[in-house]
Amino acid sequence: MTLTLHNFFRSSTSTRLRAALNLKGLSYDQVSYALRKKEHQAPAYLAKNPAGLVPALELDDSTVLTQSLAIMEWLEETYPDPALLPSAPLARARVRALAYMIACEIHPLNNLRVLGRLGEQFGADEAAQKAWFTHWVTTTFDALETTLARDAATGDFCHGDTPGFADCCLYAQVWNNRRFGIPLDGWPTIAAIFDRLDALPAFQDAAPPNQPDAI
Amino acid sequence: MTLTLHNFFRSSTSTRLRAALNLKGLSYDQVSYALRKKEHQAPAYLAKNPAGLVPALELDDSTVLTQSLAIMEWLEETYPDPALLPSAPLARARVRALAYMIACEIHPLNNLRVLGRLGEQFGADEAAQKAWFTHWVTTTFDALETTLARDAATGDFCHGDTPGFADCCLYAQVWNNRRFGIPLDGWPTIAAIFDRLDALPAFQDAAPPNQPDAI
Repeated sequence: MTLTLHNFFRSSTSTRLRAALNLKGLSYDQVSYALRKKEHQAPAYLAKNPAGLVPALELDDSTVLTQSLAIMEWLEETYPDPALLPSAPLARARVRALAYMIACEIHPLNNLRVLGRLGEQFGADEAAQKAWFTHWVTTTFDALETTLARDAATGDFCHGDTPGFADCCLYAQVWNNRRFGIPLDGWPTIAAIFDRLDALPAFQDAAPPNQPDAI
Repeated sequence: MTLTLHNFFRSSTSTRLRAALNLKGLSYDQVSYALRKKEHQAPAYLAKNPAGLVPALELDDSTVLTQSLAIMEWLEETYPDPALLPSAPLARARVRALAYMIACEIHPLNNLRVLGRLGEQFGADEAAQKAWFTHWVTTTFDALETTLARDAATGDFCHGDTPGFADCCLYAQVWNNRRFGIPLDGWPTIAAIFDRLDALPAFQDAAPPNQPDAI
């Protein structure tokens, strides 16, 4: 199976999916879409993904999978080893909830098109966009830190000592935070998990600056 | 198993989860949190869910599950019949992607705390909030309509003729749209699916006006 990843180096959802692919030990070709140039809005890509969002994963029969979390679930079902979710339903719910805290409460509010809309509709300049971005990161990272720190299920990583779905999302979000220079000082558990992830080749190889399209 | 649903009648994520619980034929007690009164930010609830968001599902051993999509996956794994996801991995990926289009691209941008933040940070009044809300609904509903209309996998509902995860999210989002009076005229496939869902008791019983805390 040849996997083609339509993505962009700086896209947080792309980073989380690259990490998952790497953890699974899967190789993939990359096609890059420069978001500021609106390459993801070109007709050829919209024919593959009407939402015009990256990432998408194309299979060798031209089937196109969209939405990073849906693709990660598909990877988990199709390439179960190594597992990125624990086996017990309550543990799986915990990991998914941690992942969705980032994927549903931070990233959707802070991606490029949303910051752009703040500029268009409210005249938000760089400083106002940073304040917005920082507000939503802080709101959810405060809760995420509490959740991780108080629960014995947290280990070297978000759940135990094996990286999984939540770690892919956390790693990508911390990279995204760096765009606005948000330090991790107030969130020691998150910071420690990030450092451990960043020492793993699967995550290093998913990091934005290490992509072929990085500028 | 006694299930206690911490929720609010008008919360879109609560509506989608109520629909899933109803489709599974599960009974549950409801505890209501009036969001405008910030009841979900009270210490007793924050102890259960540090993010202070509804819904959460509490089990009779006091385990608290958070994030509606994570809870729905747990329901699917724990109470598999009737299934809310198809069995084939590619079909599951399609349904999850449709669900996440709503859950990750619309709802996070349009919930009460985000509209409130627009007011606080940018002085957005009701009309500006409506323009923001409508923009994100339109952006994704346009893509969702195209995706549903062009794919033979779409049936009476989002995937075939059995309601599932994506339908729970779609139903809740359409109810949410009504708060700002957004008609479905431009999205005939979505409108037809909504009408079919709205004829089913599981969805009727999940609808905001039919909850005990509706005002």
